Amino acid sequence: MRKTAIIGVGCTKVGEFWDKSLRDLAVEASWKALDQAGVSKVDALYVGSALCQLVQNQGNLGALIADSLSLYGVEVLSVEASDASGALALHEACRAVGSGEVNLALAVGVDKPSDASSADASKALMAGVEQEYLAYTGVNVRGLAAFLHRLYRERFKVSHEEVAAMAVNSHLHASNNPYAQYRNRITVEQVMKSPVIADPLRLLEVSSLGDGAAAVLVCPLEEAGKYAGTPIEVAGAASASGDFILTEAEDMLSFKATRLAAEKAYRRAGITIKDVSLAEVHDCADVIGLISLEDLGLAERGEAAGMAASGKLAVGGSLPTNTMGGLKARGNPGGATSLYQIVEICWQLKGEAGANQVSNAKVGVAQSLGGLYSLAAVTVLRRV
Amino acid sequence: MRKTAIIGVGCTKVGEFWDKSLRDLAVEASWKALDQAGVSKVDALYVGSALCQLVQNQGNLGALIADSLSLYGVEVLSVEASDASGALALHEACRAVGSGEVNLALAVGVDKPSDASSADASKALMAGVEQEYLAYTGVNVRGLAAFLHRLYRERFKVSHEEVAAMAVNSHLHASNNPYAQYRNRITVEQVMKSPVIADPLRLLEVSSLGDGAAAVLVCPLEEAGKYAGTPIEVAGAASASGDFILTEAEDMLSFKATRLAAEKAYRRAGITIKDVSLAEVHDCADVIGLISLEDLGLAERGEAAGMAASGKLAVGGSLPTNTMGGLKARGNPGGATSLYQIVEICWQLKGEAGANQVSNAKVGVAQSLGGLYSLAAVTVLRRV
Repeated sequence: MRKTAIIGVGCTKVGEFWDKSLRDLAVEASWKALDQAGVSKVDALYVGSALCQLVQNQGNLGALIADSLSLYGVEVLSVEASDASGALALHEACRAVGSGEVNLALAVGVDKPSDASSADASKALMAGVEQEYLAYTGVNVRGLAAFLHRLYRERFKVSHEEVAAMAVNSHLHASNNPYAQYRNRITVEQVMKSPVIADPLRLLEVSSLGDGAAAVLVCPLEEAGKYAGTPIEVAGAASASGDFILTEAEDMLSFKATRLAAEKAYRRAGITIKDVSLAEVHDCADVIGLISLEDLGLAERGEAAGMAASGKLAVGGSLPTNTMGGLKARGNPGGATSLYQIVEICWQLKGEAGANQVSNAKVGVAQSLGGLYSLAAVTVLRRV
Repeated sequence: MRKTAIIGVGCTKVGEFWDKSLRDLAVEASWKALDQAGVSKVDALYVGSALCQLVQNQGNLGALIADSLSLYGVEVLSVEASDASGALALHEACRAVGSGEVNLALAVGVDKPSDASSADASKALMAGVEQEYLAYTGVNVRGLAAFLHRLYRERFKVSHEEVAAMAVNSHLHASNNPYAQYRNRITVEQVMKSPVIADPLRLLEVSSLGDGAAAVLVCPLEEAGKYAGTPIEVAGAASASGDFILTEAEDMLSFKATRLAAEKAYRRAGITIKDVSLAEVHDCADVIGLISLEDLGLAERGEAAGMAASGKLAVGGSLPTNTMGGLKARGNPGGATSLYQIVEICWQLKGEAGANQVSNAKVGVAQSLGGLYSLAAVTVLRRV
């Protein structure tokens, strides 16, 4: 397979947009990515969205966005994998380019949950979870995360405050990210005083929904020099499935999907964890972010919380993590979330991360989870 | 890119299944395809479904089906492109194998509309159509097809009876297909006496919804001999987008998406239309099937209806079309439909089509439309 490179990235701010449609957001992000590379046409378009069918009743989204971008006749594919949708759209775009059949491919992730009522949005959020036996019980994504939160602290003898440090770290970083939904810094004390939403999980420990779109343009690595943008190599991309029902996992505090996807992605990239300069992990709840760091091999089992509490995950620490705010504070626009991670790592590797710049960033790893937590996408990006 | 081959196919009967779930159907079809090749594991799973989110509220379907098939850790992707979902799942599976990163990939298409009320199913069916300006008006898929029916007959001076011959041809073929939803033969007179559902379209001219699943297993062509199944080469696969809003097309009686996808697929396969032994086209309404044949270049503009009326599209005719009943009579299980086409062409190319066998079938072309009619997938299969 040919090696691929990212030559353009773009995203919208994450927030609530009452005067923009789903397609407006996708188009805005796409144009930014295309402009960066100085192109207006692509051969293939991959669109990832988790919520468009249930929130907007809009299927066939790839063809809609292609039409909106005046990309008539291109190959289009709409992919859905809950919050990992955008990352999988990118992986397929890379494979299309890598296979040699396609030269320029655009991956776009987009969601606009604010078009739904709160009840409808909750139902849509649960679509990534098993419907017949699990969702049927009435449990929701927060309840299941709360369960893991308690289990993690008991198993690893970790305090609530240490776990909460993960959320504090994300807000610290988001404060310098103009695209973030929540730019306020928070303290552990504030987290501990925020309302309980599913015992023991508190409001400031979980991500909220937001509207947003992110786009990433890829081409063959060997041709990247032809375009205006600074190329970033997609060194390794892999996904894996795991247990679809969380409670059936051998070990609920370690997600097989992340472990297997990471192993494959590292092997394809030819890297070890020592090479990693920074990480973007799926912190839909603080504890899920911690488990993700451990499953990626970037922290020992049970030690990620301590790393967060001691500042190691901050920019300037030994493993800068969620350097633009993560799902918690940059915001979590469903199917776009995992492409925001890619956009943000590109900023870092290109030296465009402003006040949050990680010095000498060379290799970044992004990890995203779909459902609870039955699918993982891991992407390794490298400075060329 | 490596060449790929289909080494196993399977499908369920199309119908209304009150005692089987969405996953049961997908598993049944998958096992048949895997059994045919004599394998139980694959490296990647591609799942196409048009309706699972809106009918079952089930997203993240790829991971669910992977778990149900005990395929832990494999790469999974859920794709959605309205009725073309299954075909695009196959195209991505072929690219994954073709790229060299994956060796065995399973594509599954599944939908179970009978889990929805009639109103919910109608809403789900409209998801492939533009929501903000078109669906908003209250028009539905039948109304739009009726519009084209009238236009086709006026432009090409064709009688209603000639158009209806397309539906009669499909029922003729379905009568010999044990997997078909409607095995009754019908006459043009019966079509003309059936109720008007959207003037001038009559009930017996359109496909109805059905539950079903189809699965196709692919491997590198050069390794196909290692497996039990008779290999069929995926000679060319391509998709293209077109105008998202039908009424904005330059010519509403010719779908750009089909024309462009066919051109690419034929080029990749190295064939011309003279090489085609049989065709499966998207006859969600008889007139759409006719337009599709013309867009594929297999009939001159305005002449497909005459071909249907003179028996040329029947098995034994010059261009056997929809030889197992098409969407009209085999049934249209949403995202699975376009994989049924592939399964049926494989039966023909392997000489397993029973009473409907096309003699000396060597090359088959499948065409599927997503939305109205903004996306097309064209697949060329060849006997090895």
